[in-house]
Amino acid sequence: MAKILITSGPTREYLDPIRFISNESSGRMGAALAQACLDRGHEVLVISGPVQVTYPEQAQLIQVVTTSELEAAVQSEFPRCDGIIGAAAPCDFTPVAWQDSKIKKTGQGLSITFEETNDILAAASKSKRPDQWAVGFALETHNGFENAQKKLREKELDFIVLNGPDAMNSTTNKVRIISREKVEAEASGSKLEVAQSILSFIDVAIQDEF
Amino acid sequence: MAKILITSGPTREYLDPIRFISNESSGRMGAALAQACLDRGHEVLVISGPVQVTYPEQAQLIQVVTTSELEAAVQSEFPRCDGIIGAAAPCDFTPVAWQDSKIKKTGQGLSITFEETNDILAAASKSKRPDQWAVGFALETHNGFENAQKKLREKELDFIVLNGPDAMNSTTNKVRIISREKVEAEASGSKLEVAQSILSFIDVAIQDEF
Repeated sequence: MAKILITSGPTREYLDPIRFISNESSGRMGAALAQACLDRGHEVLVISGPVQVTYPEQAQLIQVVTTSELEAAVQSEFPRCDGIIGAAAPCDFTPVAWQDSKIKKTGQGLSITFEETNDILAAASKSKRPDQWAVGFALETHNGFENAQKKLREKELDFIVLNGPDAMNSTTNKVRIISREKVEAEASGSKLEVAQSILSFIDVAIQDEF
Repeated sequence: MAKILITSGPTREYLDPIRFISNESSGRMGAALAQACLDRGHEVLVISGPVQVTYPEQAQLIQVVTTSELEAAVQSEFPRCDGIIGAAAPCDFTPVAWQDSKIKKTGQGLSITFEETNDILAAASKSKRPDQWAVGFALETHNGFENAQKKLREKELDFIVLNGPDAMNSTTNKVRIISREKVEAEASGSKLEVAQSILSFIDVAIQDEF
């Protein structure tokens, strides 16, 4: 039995007290992964951005809103876990300046400068001990396999799960599990079925580290 | 009995296939207004952005995502209605350029230019016939009364309902109903209670037009 950290859902980056940048990540894949972990006897900690989905009751849950809150929670919790599955879709960009009152229409439009957020999963993976593992997700709209392998190498992940934009806010998914060498496995179906395939793969492929 | 058009929920403006600007509007106030309209014997059409809330079954529902979709639906439907309550929180800004593949991190950050979206409620209100009426909402973080009256005049509304940012994604609300002259009424409580007060006020104050 392992203790597995799952990040899930989107994050939000606020421009002002009302408006934010985000994405449509529903947290369903994270919830399915949490259930699949529990079904295989693992202990689960979910760190989730704002979602409507309900996570399994037996999973421990930490709720966050922004990318930096997600980052702080992962930094704090990962050392106590055996592995991390990064299923969250954190915002990659955050406004450089935050307006403390609602930005008004002026007739002039608006120009906003964003800086890149830290790569939370990459930081966790690069800091991992020999007895820890890290699996990520890549959501790619173009050149999926190449981009996913690039991410796998850059983030120093053990495996990466590639899916397309159709996965977002959907009840089904179709994924490829990719290593540095090749496509290791494919899975499709409900998000729970896909999660079960991923967990089965993790248990077999990384079982020595458990 | 009147036919009342209610706009509800947020809209989204996409930067690329994955990321969008939006706000936390839950659609709960729109759903409460729809119920209050039905309770008073009115016919209801809700035009709503992406929300999790469930609208009353007896309300007709048109679902939209972007501000321009909301605009097109209101332009098409308002001529067949007696009044409009603008409870939606459409994005005020939309990216000038849309990227058709996911924007990548480059290490350089990102600068995005936004243009202002059209004011949908103002356009509807300015186009209204003498037998039609328009009520808006103002969500203000600062100088609420002054900003609300300015919006009322600029949008040529009959009344405007002022609430604060706490209203967003909350089950309760606290509002002031404002005319060109003064604060006409105040209401607080659950969103349904507030909606009932607003509809009661509309029925009394605008009953000649019904």
